[in-house]
Formats: sequence, structure tokens, C-alpha cells
Amino acid sequence: MRVRVAGFSVSLDGFGAGPEQSLENPLGKRGLELHPWFIRTRSFQAMFGKSGGSGGVDDEYGHRSMDGFGAFILGRNMFGPIRGPWPDESWKGWWGNNPPYHAPTFVLTHYPRDPIEMEGGTTFFFVSNGIEAILEQAKLAANGRDVKIGGGVETVRQYLRAGLIDELHFAFSPVVLGQGEAMFAGIDLPALGYRVTEHQATEHATHIVLSR
Amino acid sequence: MRVRVAGFSVSLDGFGAGPEQSLENPLGKRGLELHPWFIRTRSFQAMFGKSGGSGGVDDEYGHRSMDGFGAFILGRNMFGPIRGPWPDESWKGWWGNNPPYHAPTFVLTHYPRDPIEMEGGTTFFFVSNGIEAILEQAKLAANGRDVKIGGGVETVRQYLRAGLIDELHFAFSPVVLGQGEAMFAGIDLPALGYRVTEHQATEHATHIVLSR
Repeated sequence: MRVRVAGFSVSLDGFGAGPEQSLENPLGKRGLELHPWFIRTRSFQAMFGKSGGSGGVDDEYGHRSMDGFGAFILGRNMFGPIRGPWPDESWKGWWGNNPPYHAPTFVLTHYPRDPIEMEGGTTFFFVSNGIEAILEQAKLAANGRDVKIGGGVETVRQYLRAGLIDELHFAFSPVVLGQGEAMFAGIDLPALGYRVTEHQATEHATHIVLSR
Repeated sequence: MRVRVAGFSVSLDGFGAGPEQSLENPLGKRGLELHPWFIRTRSFQAMFGKSGGSGGVDDEYGHRSMDGFGAFILGRNMFGPIRGPWPDESWKGWWGNNPPYHAPTFVLTHYPRDPIEMEGGTTFFFVSNGIEAILEQAKLAANGRDVKIGGGVETVRQYLRAGLIDELHFAFSPVVLGQGEAMFAGIDLPALGYRVTEHQATEHATHIVLSR
């Protein structure tokens, strides 16, 4: 059982999302430009019940990025644009009734809320008991499968700094954003024990796996 | 005539050189790991009078990175490890008697020194009259050919921020350094007018050209 970040898109200047996330821009302004490598693949299309899409290296990494996980951990901003207390129970994530997780999914928040059981096996749990304890919960829930730290940037950075991630797959997209959520600023990956153990480039992304 | 940065290697976490540059580590600690894509090419080997080396995409970018320039601008740390006043006239750069520039090469420094005429057409001029005036000198000297901002990181950042660079080619090497000279930190490339106009990846580097 490993704790993994996977399919995490970043710009060449190191941004994992654009600035000013909102209902209209779930990934921040220009954030969508980080993801064409994945969106065009068969794996991505299949996640949303569609056929078609490309195969090849991008598709293999895309597939790996959603495969083999028994639980997910998401930052609250990854779950939605709402900040502060939940105004009501209506927001159930960006993904419609059948989210692509199909497993227990722990949403980090300081604001308690009842779990939401979605279609397709995803249940959202809202948790605030610290990132280490939440990871332990997720590991139990994963039942021997991997746990994915699904993002966003700040959540990955917290788990990275705490030394709790075994492997990270980043897809560097051929764009510069200039602003947004900086993934690597102030994080010394080699000092944390990581090195590049895999790299493969396509026309649409440079895939890098960091392990320790 | 354009002002270009070319063949500039960076790590995936955005460092253009390692920390602690010294006589033993001209590129900073682990800095050499940024450059295998270039060192292995025919163009690089030929720069130092050797035969052999690989062809292909890396070689094409390597060739372009030294071709078509009528003048070069280098930061002082790119010229050598000495800081402060010149103790004597003995240091003549890292490159031996026949440096790979073969053109007037302007070294930014606050400490005056007489020009040094090297073999093969390189003359080092030591200049302190501000980056804009120095660029004007270099343009005159280039006589219609391009001017290369040869590095290091801080020199490129100064010219970038001043809006004086037309085109930049970065080679992202598949390593993370964690420390060193951060190329992009605090620089908003899109706000400065740059976008990715070319990208091509090989096993050894992801090549990106930014233009405006």
C-alpha cells in the first residue's frame, strides 16, 4: 500500500492551478490549459462514461492516475469553491452525481458536515482531525489498496512537507501561467528524499515520477 | 536582430544552477546534472573541438543555442567564481584559451578590468554601465547578428524583468535540485508578454521556446 500523488498537472513555471478559483474557473484562471494531455485520452473520457480518446503514453499515465486506489484525500478547494462554513448541504462537488472516485474520499475542512454517499461508490467524508490522522483513516478505508492525495496544490504540499507521500507523478504541460498555486516553491524535493525515477515525454506533457 | 536566451537548462523545480558555485562546481552543486542533453550532442562536442556526439532534436537545439550570435552578455558569476575586486589579471574564464563564443562577450561586473582578447575571436569586455546600455553596446558589436544573454540565472532574470529579451529557449532536464538559482520565482512570464511558441521533448530534455 502506497500513498501517491498521480496525474498532477503543472505548468513549466511550476503552477498546479491558476489564480482566482471560482465556480466558473474550478482550476483557477487558465487552469484548464494544464490538462489537455489527460482530457484527450481514452482514460479520461471513460471516467465520464464516454468512448473515444487517444491511447499511448499519456493514456497510460492517465489510467495509472486513477487506478489502484482504495481511498482519496482532497483539499476543500478541490471539492468546491465555497469558503468558510457550509451555507447548506447542496454543494456535492464538481463532478455531478457519479464522481470519478468510486471509493471513500476524505475532504479536508475545518467545517463539519455529514458524509455524502454518491452514486458509483464514492462517499465524501468531511474531516478536520489533522493530515496525519486523516491519512490513517484513509489507509484503513483503502483496505490494502493505495491512497491518493488528489490535490489541490496546498494539500499536496502539506503531505509532502510532512514526509507522508511515497510517490508523485507530475505531468508538465507546455504552458507558462505566471500566477496561481505554486507547487514547488520553498519545497526541497531532494532534501525530502525524492528523486526522479521515471520520465517520459509526449507532445502534450513531460511525465515525471518522483519516488524515495 | 534579436536578443535571445538559448540552450538554458533548468531543473523541473525551476533551478538554472545548483547552490554554492565554486571553482570545483562552476554550475553549483549538482548543476552539471542539468546539462546531459547538451553535453552528449555533436554540437557540444564540436564546440570543444571534439568529434562524435549525438544528432537529433537535442543536437538541433544545441546548435541553435550557439549559432547566429554576434555578441554575448554574461553575468560575472558565469565568467568565474571570483567575487569582489579582481585580485589580478590571471582569471580568464572557465573555458581555456579558446572560449566557445568567438565574438565580443560582455561581462557584467562592478569592478573595472581591461579587455582580454582570447584565441578564436572571443574578446571579453568588462562593463558596468547598466544592463540597457550594455545591451546597446552588444547590439552594435553584434553587427546585425543576434545578441545572446548567456546567463547565469540572475542576469537572465534582470533582462527578462526589463523586457529586453525577444526569445528564450529553456531545456527542462528530468531532475529536481531543490536548491540553487531559481529561474522563474516571482517572474510572471505571461504578464511580460511571453507564451510558449515551440515545444519538443526528447528522452533527455523538454525543449520550450518562449516568444512575444
